[in-house]
This record gives sequence, C-alpha cells and structure tokens, in this order.
Amino acid sequence: MRQIFVIGIGTGNPDHVTIQAINAMKGADRVFIPTKGAKKEELASVRREICERYLDAGKTKTIEFAVPQRQTEGKTYIESVDEWHAAIASSYAVLIGDLGDNAAAAFLVWGDPSLYDSTLRILERIRGSIAFEVTVIPGITSIQALAASHKIPVNLVGKPVEITTGRRLADEGLTADSTVVMLDGIQAFSQIDDPDAEIFWGAYLGTADEIIHSGRLGDVSDEIVRMRAAARERHGWIMDIYLLRKGRDFEG
Amino acid sequence: MRQIFVIGIGTGNPDHVTIQAINAMKGADRVFIPTKGAKKEELASVRREICERYLDAGKTKTIEFAVPQRQTEGKTYIESVDEWHAAIASSYAVLIGDLGDNAAAAFLVWGDPSLYDSTLRILERIRGSIAFEVTVIPGITSIQALAASHKIPVNLVGKPVEITTGRRLADEGLTADSTVVMLDGIQAFSQIDDPDAEIFWGAYLGTADEIIHSGRLGDVSDEIVRMRAAARERHGWIMDIYLLRKGRDFEG
Repeated sequence: MRQIFVIGIGTGNPDHVTIQAINAMKGADRVFIPTKGAKKEELASVRREICERYLDAGKTKTIEFAVPQRQTEGKTYIESVDEWHAAIASSYAVLIGDLGDNAAAAFLVWGDPSLYDSTLRILERIRGSIAFEVTVIPGITSIQALAASHKIPVNLVGKPVEITTGRRLADEGLTADSTVVMLDGIQAFSQIDDPDAEIFWGAYLGTADEIIHSGRLGDVSDEIVRMRAAARERHGWIMDIYLLRKGRDFEG
Repeated sequence: MRQIFVIGIGTGNPDHVTIQAINAMKGADRVFIPTKGAKKEELASVRREICERYLDAGKTKTIEFAVPQRQTEGKTYIESVDEWHAAIASSYAVLIGDLGDNAAAAFLVWGDPSLYDSTLRILERIRGSIAFEVTVIPGITSIQALAASHKIPVNLVGKPVEITTGRRLADEGLTADSTVVMLDGIQAFSQIDDPDAEIFWGAYLGTADEIIHSGRLGDVSDEIVRMRAAARERHGWIMDIYLLRKGRDFEG
C-alpha cells in the first residue's frame, strides 16, 4: 500500500521541524512541494531549504507541482472552495498515482495539518479512486509562533480561546476573552470598537522577515494597519495573525 | 544577564521535539525537571528521556525540583490557582537565583508554553526580584497530537474553533462548530445533550500508552467514560483531551 505522510513543518523557521517530521521525510521516496505566485514561491523556498537541510541527497526526490488558483467570480465562498479543492485533488491524484505500489511520499504542510489546512480533506476526495494510507505528523502553528515571539500565554487562567477568521470577526465582533484571528485579509481588528482590548500581532512569523507589534487596540490599531500595508508592499505578499485579549488573569 | 528558555516539548513522544528546542536545550547550563506524584513522575520520565537523548552529557546539568501541590480547600478556584502560582514562583526564584550571572537554563514544558501552561506567568511574578531574559520555544500541543492521531482537521472549512475546559463546557454547553476540551476531570462530554455531535477522544497522546476513540456522541459517550475510567485505574493517572464537532464541511 502507498504511504502518504502529511507533515506539519512549522511557520517558516526550518528549526521548527520536529524529529518526527525529519524521520518521516527521510523515510519518503518523494516529497511534494507546491509552487505558484509570490507568496507560494516564498513558502516553496522554505520547503526547499528544509528538504536540502534534512533529506539524504539521492534517496528522496522532491517534486514541485503548481497549485491551481481559487476562482471566486460568480461563486459563493463555499462553491469556490469546493471547486478549488476538487481541482487540487486532481493534482494529488496524478502525484500519488505516479508512485510505485509500496512507495511513500510526503506533503509538507505550512504550520500544522489540523488547522486551516485542507490537505487531509483533499486527500479524502481521492480515497475512492486510489489506495493509500495516511500518517499525520503535527507541526508548530503560527498561533504558537505568535505567542512565543510575544512571550505570552494565549489563554487567560482557566478561560477559553477562540480561533477564528477575519471575516467572522468582522461579522460577529469580539466575544471571547482570547480570540486568535487567522486568514484576515480585511484587517478586521481595525473595525473592533473595544479600545481597551489588547492586540498581539505578527507577520512572517519564524522567518528572517518577522515583524511583531502589540499594545492597547485603541493605541496601536492604526499603526499595525500601516505596518502591515508597508510590509505587504515590500514583500508582494503577507501572512499575518493576531491575538485579541480582553481582561486579565485572575479577574472574575 | 541570565537566560531562561521556556521550551515546549510536545505531549509524550520524544520525537515531537523540534530542532529549535534541541538547540536551546543544548545551549543551556541547566535543565529544570519538575517531579511529584504519579502523573508528574510519568511526565518527568519523558523529560528525562528527552534530556538523555538530546543533551551532551557533562555539559548540561538536569535539576529536578518538587512542584508544590495546589490547595483547594476553602478557596475559590482563582484564589487556589493564585496561591499555587505564588508557591511555584518561590521554587523558580531559588532555581534561577542559584544560576551564575550569565548562565542559561531551560524549563521543559509539556505541550506548548502558550496553552494552559503557567510557566510564563509564574516567571513574570519573580521578574521584580531577579534579572533574567526569557526566550520561548514553541512545542506540539495535545490538540495537534489528537488531530494527528485521528487524521482529521480540527476546524470545518472557514469555521472557528473553541478551546475550552471541561468545567466551562459543563456550564455553557456546546456552542461552537468545533470545540476542543482540555483539562476535563468531570467528563463533561457525557452531559452534552447533542447525540449527533461527533467526538474525537484521546488519552496519553504521543506515548506508548496512547488510546483514541471516536464516533457519534450518542453512540460512544458511555464507552469513552468506561475506557477512561479503566485506563485511569490502570495507570494511576490520566491526561486526556477531545474534540466535539457539529455539522460538516461545506454545510451552510
């Protein structure tokens, strides 16, 4: 049976890779690296660096493949994601179909395969047509990299944490004590009317280009919007994340 | 200035350790290992194994220290945690005070220092009395280990995730699409009246004793309660976690 490893590789620092991830990569015949576009290109280069650093040259082959773009015009969000996943699944079917019957291959996933990543659910789509076994190797997420860089816990003592998207924060407002916002292309934090909340923001976490900023939302919101726009222009792309926190430890 | 590394080491599998964590440990003069009680003893032995495997013998010294027990009698939850943290802070002050002026030391934290761990906030308590600089190294959390073992994403497409405690789940019921429950000593899932929700449960994740189970809550809830009780009796302690999920990808 073909073995597919879905490996979390952290957020841009090649040292985020775990021993378990390195061992799985070393055991694979092929490692698949997605490419395309400025952002994807930058991410692909971190994946290449990880492969060069940890793989035995000659034993494991790295295969680059182009990821289809998501088409949004005239589609609902769900339709566009569904069709996009179907298109990626076709690429996966070719990559996996091309493996020998008992070969092992690895997908290197940014962050962790369990959080806002669709590799696992896309693999599910082709299960009916190709036989393979999946092993998942966890990796450091950008949430953890953010908290590490700010040297803070994400939760207040005994309190919950919500992980959400910019779109939902904009629709639903700030409700939890600790809210982590990923995938925010609209700077939803700047629309939150809660000046006393604290924000802990970071971009390009784990990489040499990492930037972080924090403070009372009412004081630093505009500054973060400016920093983000400038960084995005400089790099041609941005990947950022933030934590919004209300209240303090040991309050009510 | 003294350097303190707060290092996430994952959930019990020594291979969860990242290259960044290994490098930080190797650079430390001392590694602090908390001990006490059946559970702490088991956790301490994983920490010892990590030290033996990755440290250069002779260069880095491992120091075991007893963690004070939390006193709950006649106290609110917040009082008891506050006093417990104060007691642990006294231990930390002794350990750090005992370091040379430019020495480096590491606390090895179960999971990740950012999630339901108080090492960082306890270190904050002694900042006024001893000078030191903190560096945080992220580690694999039990949430990620749970998702990896079940081979599932934690979130539904574009939907939020709530991370909470058993106590809060019992008080507030199941509200989010994906709810991760940590620190549940009361099996709050068994009181949730939502039989069609799915549960993905795991205990001793990452260790040789790992057990997982999953299914429709109405079908498997009693079974998990039994498995958990039996495992707890067998080991003398248990550390478990679960995900409750309502709905499906691409619904509404």
